Amino acid sequence: MTRMIVVLRLGHRPNRDQRVTTHVALTARALGADAVWVSTEDRALEKTVESVVRRFGGRFTIRTGVDWRKAIRAWKGEVVHLTMYGESLSKALPTIKTTKNLMIIVGAEKVPREVYDLATRNVSVGSQPHSEVAALAIFLDRYYGGKTLERGFGGRLRIVPNPRGKTVIDRGKGKERKAPKQG
Amino acid sequence: MTRMIVVLRLGHRPNRDQRVTTHVALTARALGADAVWVSTEDRALEKTVESVVRRFGGRFTIRTGVDWRKAIRAWKGEVVHLTMYGESLSKALPTIKTTKNLMIIVGAEKVPREVYDLATRNVSVGSQPHSEVAALAIFLDRYYGGKTLERGFGGRLRIVPNPRGKTVIDRGKGKERKAPKQG
Repeated sequence: MTRMIVVLRLGHRPNRDQRVTTHVALTARALGADAVWVSTEDRALEKTVESVVRRFGGRFTIRTGVDWRKAIRAWKGEVVHLTMYGESLSKALPTIKTTKNLMIIVGAEKVPREVYDLATRNVSVGSQPHSEVAALAIFLDRYYGGKTLERGFGGRLRIVPNPRGKTVIDRGKGKERKAPKQG
Repeated sequence: MTRMIVVLRLGHRPNRDQRVTTHVALTARALGADAVWVSTEDRALEKTVESVVRRFGGRFTIRTGVDWRKAIRAWKGEVVHLTMYGESLSKALPTIKTTKNLMIIVGAEKVPREVYDLATRNVSVGSQPHSEVAALAIFLDRYYGGKTLERGFGGRLRIVPNPRGKTVIDRGKGKERKAPKQG
């Protein structure tokens, strides 16, 4: 399947939103998206995300400084805008085709009205104010029926589930480091 | 049922973490927790969260400046620490009793080793680096079997799902404001 899932992050302000946008990007990667596109150029953000991909694996990519209007208009597939005002996730989800390319839009504070019209769907992950990171996480987890969360990434670093400590396998060093340090 | 669910946020630094901790708190509220306790005192954070509760309803509370070691030790019930190193969510979840009080611990960057031992469970929401907001959201969504996300809060402001605009009912004003402004 050559289907592609891209998360488009709108309204990113490098100073103010760096940490939350990093959470958006890493959540997108961990839950099965192929890429994050960010509307504002931010090289530091790119480096942070690329460093995780390099160490932990997968083919996830990041682009910043993306013209969002052009990107939405050029998209071939569904465009789902996550907003607390949209139709409810439980009703919308069964009608979103999983065979098509999917663009998921998440905004920072204010999203231009135009986005509501350009999107093929406006979907609310709960109608309460909370977090675009949480909304994206729940959307992707449910979209994939919970199947992407625990898949492997084939990276240099691999964490092995451990109820009481930290087990990190570093294939670059050919040895297992077990609970190497605190915290 | 008098069972209580509290999210304990560790390592909050008011300058650096205010936005992410706000996301943690509002995600906790939206997904069915009763309270968030934050290890560092932060009045501005309290005000932000209390303002959402006042407008959107529910009984969610926030406390900051909480002595986390004491709070964990005094807790009667399960203590689930969410960490990328823990046992996998899909295996752990069926064994976490839903009839007991539940404390969910989410850290900022580094979590003291002691927390891994004080917790009754260390659980990984995926073994990839992503976001404590995403981890909390997915944990609570799955814990409740998806049932809390779209429940009502009985607040003054209520958002009615709308596929193309914004419908906000303001009971304080006794009238419906429909798509009152852009963005």
